Amino acid sequence: MKIISSPQELKEHLKSIKNSIGFQGNQSIGFVPTMGALHEGHISLIKKAKEQNETVVVSIFLNPTQFLKGEDLDKYPKKDEADKKICEISGVDVLFFPQPSDMYGADEVSILAPKVRGYVLEGESRPGHFNGVLTVVMKLFNIVNPTRAYFGKKDAQQLNLISLMVKQFFMSVEIIPVDTVREKDGLALSSRNAYLRKDERAEALKISSSLRLSSAMVSRGVLDAKEIKSAMRELLAPLEIFYVEILDREFNQLSKVEIGNTVILVEVKVGATRLLDNIWL
Amino acid sequence: MKIISSPQELKEHLKSIKNSIGFQGNQSIGFVPTMGALHEGHISLIKKAKEQNETVVVSIFLNPTQFLKGEDLDKYPKKDEADKKICEISGVDVLFFPQPSDMYGADEVSILAPKVRGYVLEGESRPGHFNGVLTVVMKLFNIVNPTRAYFGKKDAQQLNLISLMVKQFFMSVEIIPVDTVREKDGLALSSRNAYLRKDERAEALKISSSLRLSSAMVSRGVLDAKEIKSAMRELLAPLEIFYVEILDREFNQLSKVEIGNTVILVEVKVGATRLLDNIWL
Repeated sequence: MKIISSPQELKEHLKSIKNSIGFQGNQSIGFVPTMGALHEGHISLIKKAKEQNETVVVSIFLNPTQFLKGEDLDKYPKKDEADKKICEISGVDVLFFPQPSDMYGADEVSILAPKVRGYVLEGESRPGHFNGVLTVVMKLFNIVNPTRAYFGKKDAQQLNLISLMVKQFFMSVEIIPVDTVREKDGLALSSRNAYLRKDERAEALKISSSLRLSSAMVSRGVLDAKEIKSAMRELLAPLEIFYVEILDREFNQLSKVEIGNTVILVEVKVGATRLLDNIWL
Repeated sequence: MKIISSPQELKEHLKSIKNSIGFQGNQSIGFVPTMGALHEGHISLIKKAKEQNETVVVSIFLNPTQFLKGEDLDKYPKKDEADKKICEISGVDVLFFPQPSDMYGADEVSILAPKVRGYVLEGESRPGHFNGVLTVVMKLFNIVNPTRAYFGKKDAQQLNLISLMVKQFFMSVEIIPVDTVREKDGLALSSRNAYLRKDERAEALKISSSLRLSSAMVSRGVLDAKEIKSAMRELLAPLEIFYVEILDREFNQLSKVEIGNTVILVEVKVGATRLLDNIWL
């Protein structure tokens, strides 16, 4: 596995790979951007990228611009050596490991998330968060120039906004959504789970329970969004609820679940930790 | 000359051209983005692109997002048929001629100009203008994927910000600055010159005169920025002056002219028309 920290060096390296002959025309490059603290969720993204591409690139970059003032940037789990091992074992070809000064300069041009879709849900409680996400993803895409890029469905709004940016900016990469990986008891994997105390971890199970409840209601023929959300909120109490939403796949409000075109999203605070999850119906 | 209005169609068309064999590796694509109302200034950009590339693409798109409310979008000169003729005669290979609905959708991701460099000079009197410029240029670059793109030195701040965006976003295009084309009497060519009445046109000559004065002072050994600016302002009076600035090539203030690293910029209002010009020393 090659480890590269310079954006220019990575760009040159991948350009020569991409221009060489692959199975179908040029070589394909699969890209998995991460902030490190890798877990089974990331590994499933890497696996998918390995299946579909000739070369797999993973980036590990704890992106400062997507953390607001007072958020947990300094506290975010760092596991550089373990992360490198995981990438090596998973068969990653190139690991991109830049420093903030490699990615950002002074007085920067940046990306502004859409005024509506970027400032609802997680964007409402973290205004500006998605500007930072989209800025770093645009930079990473321009450096790696991937054929396909892999994102977890767990961060559904992030996935939605990145897909929107790719479409609106006529970018060439194909965005591949990958199913959320869960613990046996249902808890969605997240680097932030490391913050949870034992009692908090038990409380956090209410999140996936509430999503299973919504799915069960829909199976029973209950499609009314208000009714489903109210049942979910009841189950989630007494956690601090940021939102419980039922949206279509383009993130418009739904009053009735549309099978095949619905995302049900939850974000809550467990202790001091913000956790989110969702289910695609 | 091929005329294409669909971004996706153009992208596909140019992709196959760029992947075919050229003189040095892949075919090179030269790109000249314009807002139409083509004049000798644009033709000099096209000529340069023809010299340096195997395929030349020109876009004509009156970009609505770079005009602020109350600005002259509706009044901006439109000469579609003449523009097409000029491109054809100049040997353009592909003319990209999209509609606003081809380029923009609802609730868009956009580019935010740098908080300092994007809001001084023209950005100060037209706050948000450069957000629109950078957004459309990023989109156009992603559609055309050019080897080189050509911009006039006349819009020096625009050129500076686009170069900055290309660098900060690790884009692959090379930005080529092209000298300003002038009328025999010195007036820099601009689509907005069409707005000038005869007496206003005479007044507008003060702009290039003030720049020649600055250059003459520097030749005589006067390097003090304050002294030069004050002489220029005296010459420009009684025009409404937006700014007279002496900056380095990265747009930082200079107190003394640095030969080889200086841009002197002027923007004034002549009648109802905003005109700008500059000289690189």
